[in-house]
Formats: sequence, structure tokens, C-alpha cells
Amino acid sequence: MYNKDLIIQKNEIDRRIKLLQDQLINQNIDYAFIIQNADIFYFTGFVSASILLISQKDTILFCRKDIDNVKNFSNLSNIVKINSFKDIGDYIESDKIQGFELDVVPYSMINYFKKILNPSKLVDISSLIRDVRAIKSDVEIRYIKKAANLLNILCREIVNYIKPGITEVEIFAKAQEILIKNGHQGYTRMRGFNQEMFYGHLLSGEEGIISGYLDAPTCGSGIYPAFPQGSSNRVIKQGDLVSVDLVGAYNGYHADQTRPFSCGKIDGIYYDNFQKALEIQDEVVSMIKPGIAWEDAYYKGIKIAKKLKIDEYFMGYFSKVKFIGHGIGVEVDEYPFLSPNFKKEFLPNMVFAIEPKIFLPKYGVIGIENTYLITENGCEKITISPDKITTA
Amino acid sequence: MYNKDLIIQKNEIDRRIKLLQDQLINQNIDYAFIIQNADIFYFTGFVSASILLISQKDTILFCRKDIDNVKNFSNLSNIVKINSFKDIGDYIESDKIQGFELDVVPYSMINYFKKILNPSKLVDISSLIRDVRAIKSDVEIRYIKKAANLLNILCREIVNYIKPGITEVEIFAKAQEILIKNGHQGYTRMRGFNQEMFYGHLLSGEEGIISGYLDAPTCGSGIYPAFPQGSSNRVIKQGDLVSVDLVGAYNGYHADQTRPFSCGKIDGIYYDNFQKALEIQDEVVSMIKPGIAWEDAYYKGIKIAKKLKIDEYFMGYFSKVKFIGHGIGVEVDEYPFLSPNFKKEFLPNMVFAIEPKIFLPKYGVIGIENTYLITENGCEKITISPDKITTA
Repeated sequence: MYNKDLIIQKNEIDRRIKLLQDQLINQNIDYAFIIQNADIFYFTGFVSASILLISQKDTILFCRKDIDNVKNFSNLSNIVKINSFKDIGDYIESDKIQGFELDVVPYSMINYFKKILNPSKLVDISSLIRDVRAIKSDVEIRYIKKAANLLNILCREIVNYIKPGITEVEIFAKAQEILIKNGHQGYTRMRGFNQEMFYGHLLSGEEGIISGYLDAPTCGSGIYPAFPQGSSNRVIKQGDLVSVDLVGAYNGYHADQTRPFSCGKIDGIYYDNFQKALEIQDEVVSMIKPGIAWEDAYYKGIKIAKKLKIDEYFMGYFSKVKFIGHGIGVEVDEYPFLSPNFKKEFLPNMVFAIEPKIFLPKYGVIGIENTYLITENGCEKITISPDKITTA
Repeated sequence: MYNKDLIIQKNEIDRRIKLLQDQLINQNIDYAFIIQNADIFYFTGFVSASILLISQKDTILFCRKDIDNVKNFSNLSNIVKINSFKDIGDYIESDKIQGFELDVVPYSMINYFKKILNPSKLVDISSLIRDVRAIKSDVEIRYIKKAANLLNILCREIVNYIKPGITEVEIFAKAQEILIKNGHQGYTRMRGFNQEMFYGHLLSGEEGIISGYLDAPTCGSGIYPAFPQGSSNRVIKQGDLVSVDLVGAYNGYHADQTRPFSCGKIDGIYYDNFQKALEIQDEVVSMIKPGIAWEDAYYKGIKIAKKLKIDEYFMGYFSKVKFIGHGIGVEVDEYPFLSPNFKKEFLPNMVFAIEPKIFLPKYGVIGIENTYLITENGCEKITISPDKITTA
């Protein structure tokens, strides 16, 4: 059903689980129960209606349905069928410290598991999982590069549709079609509650400056108050800037890229500010290497923005986000965060997107976003579209 | 920015809040705190980064950002800016019973609110909200009809793309484009945890029978183990049946419809079973009226399936779902559920989708789905595409 190349191999699954087990031992947690789809995919290679138990020594996938299918596509060793979650109790010792993804699993569901699994103590394992997931293997980097390639195809093709008289949402419809036809998985995953990700934001002119309910620098107004996000019915005209910030997704792995397109000749203010965004990107990226603290990358970006006298317009105008970049992998919002109060250090094989964006009243958003891999000495660019304003 | 017609009017907002307040008084709950996007939209008319407090007498929307924008599009009376969630404490009395959407809000987030808001007792208000939302007003029915109309346009246009040699996912890419161009909001909302809804399922031949991680009768395999859902790379051939089960979404309101399309001449087994699905649909719908218990509609469907000797293939083959239909509105999975153990009664102005589907090994899925409004005496069909197999 799936190409062999898309199946996560046993040694890779084992590597991931071993890393979490090291964390469990380190933190003195007896059992990790993993429920959320992105994490189930990460540790088993296949999204199923299951709960994954990782203890300090063993793993069991408790599968509620379609076990034959799950066994076909997951290289996890120990997959068992349960009829009810209550059966899980038979597989564990009582009075142990249990970890759950408390940042994403709903309150009622955790309470239900507390009742049936009787932990001596309940702890949040989300940051442990995120630490493990932050370090990418070769196969993960390969998938992220495939996701980045989708965005490059998009940029090459979408330019043909940006012209006066077309609406944002019509261009977006084409963008969706291009992505899906070329192997985009469609659905994109965000970890944050209420963060409804839908491909990303393709915005034009003054629409680009609108902030909204998401923890993202851009939001747009969309077409409905019910989903006030993304492309609107605004009609493109000569001299408009169109910012294309869409997410690639290939076999669960995402890449993030933003590129500006001009509809004919545009105001010089866009070019001036695009250069400033590039300067911030390049200077921040040039300092990022193993050992640097995540927050220091953020402060560096803010410092350059001040020096360039654009801090009032940087990372939001009506309201600002408190980051200039974010890790990316099986979720679009993962470690490392280029954000204040993150003293953790960058490590080799982390992958992050940096997105310096400048919000200009009356003009909209102008900026750049690229996804990078951290190597032993610095950063290697994963997204491949040229860093420029493309004239449509 | 939005047509006036898309703004939820003050009398409608007030009506909704009053209904929840009646429930709060009835259940002796002092404060309801509403956080989740679908519910924020329902009670305020606009999705914002806010928390809505509904007490037995008052409402306050605590807005974290972009308050001017929120005031533009929400007809709620009392909207205040807060800098931190901790500020909410200044607006409430201590030692009161507080309700939250415990079925959807993550455990950590609820714990945080418990710490800063000090409830004497914490209760789940999800079913109260769902009860209120289940009864649709005229404007809601109008939006659902608009969503249904999108699905009718889809059915008329998609038939042109179903032909030998095209893949499922290529047809799906076209379907997306048709929907978006005609005013589909793109994103669709499910309440259930891990229920990753992405337009729905466009499946062909034996792909239609694959069940998976969703609580839905169909799932499909998708193109990746990371997102094993929806259209695959399967190539359509002469004699295939293509089941198009996509969700319409217009200003936050959904409609659900499934229609089968044939690629050329198809096996008679599809026609036979389609008639059986129609018989189940029509007989169940003919019994649904105010006063009937939700579960009785389910049992009726199962009983007819047995009579027709298709119970082995009804609502799943590898694994079955325990429902034959579901309410629909601002979420695709809402009250009423046509499912066992729901003794609640149908009421006038509820809206539900019924989806009798038959899963035939080697052939795939054949079935029907329509969305209905419950009137004083029975049901009125909302979806408008003809109940037939369309030959492509």
C-alpha cells in the first residue's frame, strides 16, 4: 500500500524509543503512555487508534482496532489487541510513576486514565518527548527535504496564477492543488491547543498585517468570522505584494518557507524591508550552532531589528509574537523555539525555521522564512527556493 | 472585511448565551469558562485568542490580543483586554463552582486555570454546551444549507474528473479546488481528540473498505503511514466505484453528504447494495421526530440491516463504528448521536447526518449520506444532490 521508503524501519523506531527510555530512567518515571497522533506516529511509524506504553525497558502498543493493518505498517515489536483501555491495567505494576502528554491530552481523558491505571504520581512527559524529537535522524532529514521540495515546486508554479483580478483565495485554491498533486499530505500538525493550521497563510497587500487568534506572526482574515485565518476574497491588483507562507508536509514531516511575490512593479519600500529581513535572517543563522542558547538567537534578531529601526514593525504590528523562529518536524511547532526564556542549547541535527517578518501599515507583510538543519559548526539550509522577491 | 450577512447578530448571541445560562442555573454552576475555538465562535460570533466567561447573569470576553478587531466582528457586549490570564481572577468571586470544556481542553491548561481561579469545584460543561448547540436557529440552518450547496456544486463538477487513469488523490485535489473556489472555509472542525478531519474521504474500489484510526466508518489509507486517511495514489479504472464523502463548511457550519460515482459500467452488486443503504436511510429518517430517543434510530438501522442480511458488512467490515449518524453544526461530531446508550430525545431544529454504508470485500464501500433538519413532525432534507449513483 505504501512505498517501502515510507515505512519507518525497526532500527529507527528502536533508536527513538531508546532515547525516550534514557529520559525516563533519568527522570525516574516508570511508564510513559503516549496517545497523541503525532507522537504515536513518531514512536511507532504509523498512526493508529492505539496507546503506546514505553517503560524503562519495554514497549507495548495497545491497539483498539485494525491490528493486522497496524502490524503491517509499524515496525514496533510488541503490538497487542485490547478490547477496552481497562485491559492495560493487566500489563503494568501498580503504584508507579506514570507520564502522559499532559499538554495535549484533554483533561477528562487523563482523569479517566488516572482512574483505571492508578498511578502513584502523574507527570508530564511532553518536554521529554519534544527533546527526543528535536534531534533528527537521516531519514527524518530526508523527509523534511522532500517537504521543502514541495514548497519549491509551489513557488515555481504559483507565480503563473498571481495576476490582477484574481482573489487571494483563488490563488490559494491553486496552491493547494499544486501541493496535493505533488505529494503533500494535506493535513498539517500543530501541537498547540486551538492552533488550527490549514496549510499556512497566502496573503496580499494590507491583509498581510492582520494578526489574529493564532500564535503566529501572520493570520489574515480568511473569508469568514468563523475561521478568520488565511486567504481572503481580496482582489489582487497591480503593485500588490503577495506573501506565500505555506507549509510542506511529506510523510508526517513538515518544512516551512515564506516567499514574497510581486504583482508587477511594486513600491521600493518592499525591497528595502525585504533586505532588512534577509539581514536579520542571515545574521541570526550565522550565530546559530551547537552550544548557543535558543533565546540568544531571538535576542540577536530583536537587536538587529532595533539597529535597523524596524523594531516597531518586527514580528507583528497590532500584536507581536514572542519568537522569530521555531523547530519543525512531525509538528510545525516543536523544539527548538527561538524565543525568550528558553535557555536550552541548540544541538546538532536540530531543524528549525526562522521567519523574520516586517509589518508595514498600508503595505502589509514583507519577510522571509527558511528551514535549516543545525550541523556540527553551523546551519545548512533545507528550503531551496531562492531568497528573493519574484515578479509575477 | 466580512459581508454583514456573516456577522452573528446580537439577538442571536444573546439567545445562545441565555440558553447556556439557563443550564448553569439548572445545574447550579456559577461560572462557565469557554476556551475552545468552535465554542468561542458559537457564543461570540468570532474566533479570537480569548476566554469567555458566562456566569448565571453576565458575560465577559477576556481578550488576549487584537481587541479592536474582536470588537468589530463580535456582537458580544462586554469585551475586555487582559494582559495575563491571571487578571481574570479580579472579575470573579472566589470559592465558586466553575465549569470548563473538560473533554477538549488539555490537562495542563485546566490545571493552570485551577491554580489561578481557585474553584470550589470543577465541572465539565461540554454536554451543556452541546445541548445548547444542538438546537439550530434560522441563521444556523441557513449557513448549513449554504454548506450543503457547496457539496451539490462539488457533485455536479467532480463527475468530469472521474475517469480511468486518474488517481484518487488527483480527483481529491480537484475537489478541494472546487470547494475552496465556491466558498468552502477549508478547515473543518471535529471535537473528538485525535480526530484529524481533512475535508473527508474520497475513496475508490477496495480502498473504501479500509478502516483506521478515526471514529468514522471509512478511513482509507491516504498516501503516507504518517497520515493514513483519505485519498490514496490508487489509479481509477473502468468499473470502479468512487465514494465521495466530503464535508461542506460555510462560516463555521458544516454539512455532510456522501454520493457514489461509477467509472463507466459497474457491477450490479453496487446497485443492489445502494438500494439497501437507501432503504435504511429512508426507514430510519421516517421514524425520526421529536420525542424519539437517539439510540432508537441506531437500533432501527441495525434491525433493517439484519433483515436485509447485510449486518456483517454494515458500518464497517474490518472494524465497525457504533453509530449510523451524527449531529452536525459548528463541529462535524455533535449532538444528536444516532448511537447506542444515548437515551436523549430528538428535538425540533436539531440537525443530523445519517450515513448507512455497506462494506463489501473486494468491492469497497457503497452508501449514502444526507444531512437533515428535524421539524415538528419529522425530518426535512438539507443536502440537495439526488440520491443516486452518478455515472462518470
